[in-house]
Amino acid sequence: MAPSPTSQNKAALRDRIQALFDRSGLLLHLGATLGDVSDGRVHVHLPFSPSLTQHLGLFHAGATSALADSAGGFAAMTQAPDGYTVLSVEFKINLLAPAQGESLEAIGQVIRKGRTLTIVQVDVFALDAGRKTPIALMQQTIINIPDRKS
Amino acid sequence: MAPSPTSQNKAALRDRIQALFDRSGLLLHLGATLGDVSDGRVHVHLPFSPSLTQHLGLFHAGATSALADSAGGFAAMTQAPDGYTVLSVEFKINLLAPAQGESLEAIGQVIRKGRTLTIVQVDVFALDAGRKTPIALMQQTIINIPDRKS
Amino acid sequence: MAPSPTSQNKAALRDRIQALFDRSGLLLHLGATLGDVSDGRVHVHLPFSPSLTQHLGLFHAGATSALADSAGGFAAMTQAPDGYTVLSVEFKINLLAPAQGESLEAIGQVIRKGRTLTIVQVDVFALDAGRKTPIALMQQTIINIPDRKS
Amino acid sequence: MAPSPTSQNKAALRDRIQALFDRSGLLLHLGATLGDVSDGRVHVHLPFSPSLTQHLGLFHAGATSALADSAGGFAAMTQAPDGYTVLSVEFKINLLAPAQGESLEAIGQVIRKGRTLTIVQVDVFALDAGRKTPIALMQQTIINIPDRKS
Repeated sequence: MAPSPTSQNKAALRDRIQALFDRSGLLLHLGATLGDVSDGRVHVHLPFSPSLTQHLGLFHAGATSALADSAGGFAAMTQAPDGYTVLSVEFKINLLAPAQGESLEAIGQVIRKGRTLTIVQVDVFALDAGRKTPIALMQQTIINIPDRKS
Repeated sequence: MAPSPTSQNKAALRDRIQALFDRSGLLLHLGATLGDVSDGRVHVHLPFSPSLTQHLGLFHAGATSALADSAGGFAAMTQAPDGYTVLSVEFKINLLAPAQGESLEAIGQVIRKGRTLTIVQVDVFALDAGRKTPIALMQQTIINIPDRKS
Repeated sequence: MAPSPTSQNKAALRDRIQALFDRSGLLLHLGATLGDVSDGRVHVHLPFSPSLTQHLGLFHAGATSALADSAGGFAAMTQAPDGYTVLSVEFKINLLAPAQGESLEAIGQVIRKGRTLTIVQVDVFALDAGRKTPIALMQQTIINIPDRKS
Repeated sequence: MAPSPTSQNKAALRDRIQALFDRSGLLLHLGATLGDVSDGRVHVHLPFSPSLTQHLGLFHAGATSALADSAGGFAAMTQAPDGYTVLSVEFKINLLAPAQGESLEAIGQVIRKGRTLTIVQVDVFALDAGRKTPIALMQQTIINIPDRKS
């Protein structure tokens, strides 16, 4: 049976985001992986490693931020116009609880899509022994810019 | 000639921050190095590497943020009370210009030191072919917490 | 029939927040009114007036922020320990859409309650001709401090 | 003696900002006044009034924010292209110290001027018995939009 147009679209969207992901040297270096991708919403995962820690052995706020910034940027990218790519203008992140566990999961969700600017919210969770704890919350402003490569 | 008490203090302060730095797995993994350290002010450097990039080949905003968050946290740490360490409560960063060049330099500066909370500002510059360009600006809130290891 | 313990608690909570509200000269001056109050969640309303506008005749971002900051502070106050009051440490607000209509409604919701710091999220809506549009989103950090008056 | 071209420009710039100020109902309602205006930098003053307070009798963080947001917006406006006006996209403010005294002064300063977005930093001071104390620090993102009235 042929895939439905909708599942074709979803697969194409995922391929588009995966291609961006694979060109992000930082995400590969940190060991992040792309999770679920849908219109306006993207999950990114980050398994724990001693290469991601701060001085107390927790996930470094910088690792959490890089993960959240990426999930948010990809979420915006799912809604960027054809021929455009995205850049972070700014973001603000609250670290809600100690970031410890087997992995982090960041979920970026577009809050408002504009022609020039997209506003995204990102929730970050720690997964630890079967428990999922919110450990960070981000608000992010993204700008659409013409993609010279497209 | 013996070092003056002031230069002894400055060396001790630097050792204290360097020890924290060396326990930060993320900073070592990213290839960052500690620069100048003084009371309330710390520089951190990050040489360019393809392991630090986003999809366009620029420094990833997550790398810039990790660098800035660290410089800010260390600046706060230079003024933390004995027996205390620091954690980031939150920060906000504006990405001012494309982050490209041979290296980034983040300079954290304490703006207000309180008993519980310290407010820090961080400037990030890109060094490119002899030019130094501001590429990010951060405001950060840091909390002092008792250090169980001390 | 006597009110249930729960409805008594809810009434006491509302009285506590209303008393704070009535001591806030700015909110009275702007014409704001207290809406629904529950544990960790407070609504504040702001009817339109030419005294609240910016140069284009929209609600001024400063009015929107004052409203959101208040709703967030009150939400934190519903969970502050006895003998404590609250102060805003910092907040970040995105203005999502032009703020126009008959009134604004800000809804503050505690995201994380700590001993010292409380993190709050605030949604602001414009009510215009029966439509309710999100016009701002805030993340806010609140600190509990001993209340000398209590 | 005729005024120099530079002083003519400065007077014209001030008139342009004063005209915006006078169309801002909120600023008039709060009792704010325009201070020094130069290219990329604007001061706004706010004398104390019981109409500006929170529950402890200090300047309300919402009043401080409205003042800072205005100073920042006007600073951006001094550098907006002809035929454009400005809107706040977002801002983040740290409240550094209790806001008390005879008046507040906010100084907005453009940090980076782009074609679409301008990044501004705003310092807010309290003036109290001859002392000037920093009480807030803001980072703000401003967007240039075509002015339909021009």
